[in-house]
Amino acid sequence: MIEVALLGCGGGMPMPERYLSALLLKYGGRKILIDCGEGTQVSMRILGWGFKTIDIICITHGHGDHIVGLPGLLSTIGNSGRTAPLTIIGPEGITEIVNGLRVIAPYLPFEINMIENPSETINIGIGKEELQIVDKTAEMEIKALVVDHSAPCLSYSFNIKRRPRFDASKAAANHVPKVIWNKLQKTGDIEYEGVLFTPDMVLGNERSGIKISFVTDTRPTVEIPRFIMESDLFICEGTYGAEEDLNKAVKNKHMLFREAAELAEAGKVKELLLTHFSPIMQVPELYRENAEAIFAKVTIGQDRLIKGISFIDK
Amino acid sequence: MIEVALLGCGGGMPMPERYLSALLLKYGGRKILIDCGEGTQVSMRILGWGFKTIDIICITHGHGDHIVGLPGLLSTIGNSGRTAPLTIIGPEGITEIVNGLRVIAPYLPFEINMIENPSETINIGIGKEELQIVDKTAEMEIKALVVDHSAPCLSYSFNIKRRPRFDASKAAANHVPKVIWNKLQKTGDIEYEGVLFTPDMVLGNERSGIKISFVTDTRPTVEIPRFIMESDLFICEGTYGAEEDLNKAVKNKHMLFREAAELAEAGKVKELLLTHFSPIMQVPELYRENAEAIFAKVTIGQDRLIKGISFIDK
Repeated sequence: MIEVALLGCGGGMPMPERYLSALLLKYGGRKILIDCGEGTQVSMRILGWGFKTIDIICITHGHGDHIVGLPGLLSTIGNSGRTAPLTIIGPEGITEIVNGLRVIAPYLPFEINMIENPSETINIGIGKEELQIVDKTAEMEIKALVVDHSAPCLSYSFNIKRRPRFDASKAAANHVPKVIWNKLQKTGDIEYEGVLFTPDMVLGNERSGIKISFVTDTRPTVEIPRFIMESDLFICEGTYGAEEDLNKAVKNKHMLFREAAELAEAGKVKELLLTHFSPIMQVPELYRENAEAIFAKVTIGQDRLIKGISFIDK
Repeated sequence: MIEVALLGCGGGMPMPERYLSALLLKYGGRKILIDCGEGTQVSMRILGWGFKTIDIICITHGHGDHIVGLPGLLSTIGNSGRTAPLTIIGPEGITEIVNGLRVIAPYLPFEINMIENPSETINIGIGKEELQIVDKTAEMEIKALVVDHSAPCLSYSFNIKRRPRFDASKAAANHVPKVIWNKLQKTGDIEYEGVLFTPDMVLGNERSGIKISFVTDTRPTVEIPRFIMESDLFICEGTYGAEEDLNKAVKNKHMLFREAAELAEAGKVKELLLTHFSPIMQVPELYRENAEAIFAKVTIGQDRLIKGISFIDK
């Protein structure tokens, strides 16, 4: 199971009941943070999930409401006892932005690896110490998509993969010697007594993973539906609920609830979680029907809303 | 009357009920902010005092818990419609720090005047549009003192002056012509029909002003008592309440409750307001007696605690 906590569902300015953009993924005892607006640390402290195990921070873009909490959070992670390296992923220019902000957090007890504007899938292995970037045998894939905002901005998808289960009858049918069963299912090809054995000889059917996608801040783009395709959870900005705010959405490069729902529908996702609400929209719930008219399963975000997503194949 | 709002009373890391260091002074419809830790904007929004009229921001030092909220706040002030210049005062290095942080708030609709490590009193005039730095006829004086922390750090005092009242009997006794009474009391010397008249000829006795001083983060220093002398309100860090934490206080360049109280006593202040509590101290109230054993009038800070201080001479 992966747990997803919406740490802050506000856009623009932090409000008492609505901190700024931040989402936390918790899987296998490790954590990935996406965005770090003001209030992120406070929400995390209320949750009580701890700071030390944040291995990766993905930043959508360099606007204050998505990143202002970063230097403070890095200091807190430093104070938590972390010494393992931490990876920050972000759009074009993120290295300069992080370096600028680190003027107030210059000394940290861990290294920071910057990945700026990745064009290829980032493969993540879940180690005991931390989530690590690996070449193969990834347990999670992170993809980024350049979207359409007033600053360089990335959307992210997280695909938590699931290895097929060991299948003893298949192993027997393929005449795989018992002595290599365990190693074969966990590593790669093995040559044993002159015969080449491959993992598929002992593994059952593919099992579906979990896909989570996070899209903010942007206008709808033609690439987004394919990028978010069949997500179990599609977290998307709905900066404005009311149709009358379309001009504002276009001008400020944001989306209406209706537009987020159209993306959810086109991307065949299982659930849409709306976030990044404008301060002018006091009660986002009032505009729920503008999304539900297009897409059935809509959740209106609120700070520290938690979703647990389990693998379907047991 | 001047109103003082403790926006955040935490040190180090923001907590759900304790945002980071920030204090707001409100006087004559204008505002001065001292420090801007994470949560400052949220506290301000709860107070509802508005953002546009913040004319001066004094930063004690460049540690994240005192400044992380600055770029977000500057953006919000920009969104509030402000176009009048804003002054930021801070210790050595503040210009570089503010420039670094402004990587996420590069475009603002107002100018920023930086005053780095001021060695002389800053005279402030209260205009209709904004608090302005002036040469003379100051209605407020801001003084800064270099204190003893692990980064260049300033303490601040704010002295709100009060002009003597017009005294008609004195004006008559001094044979001041009625036609210059009004001008003489408001400006400076006037020569009228060959005679030099001075403001003291029409003004009554000196009236006491209001003094507020803010001291964090620092060890106690010998200069502090004189700097805070006879403050109406002395806001001072009490990072640790327990005497057992003296070693921590010395190592991290902070103060115990007892040490803050000793400064209050030596400085003959009217009231001590403790702030900047360490996250390890869950209930600062438990250590109240460590301060009260030294100094009688102690208030334990909490977020959005407000004090109104009136001029004594009516």
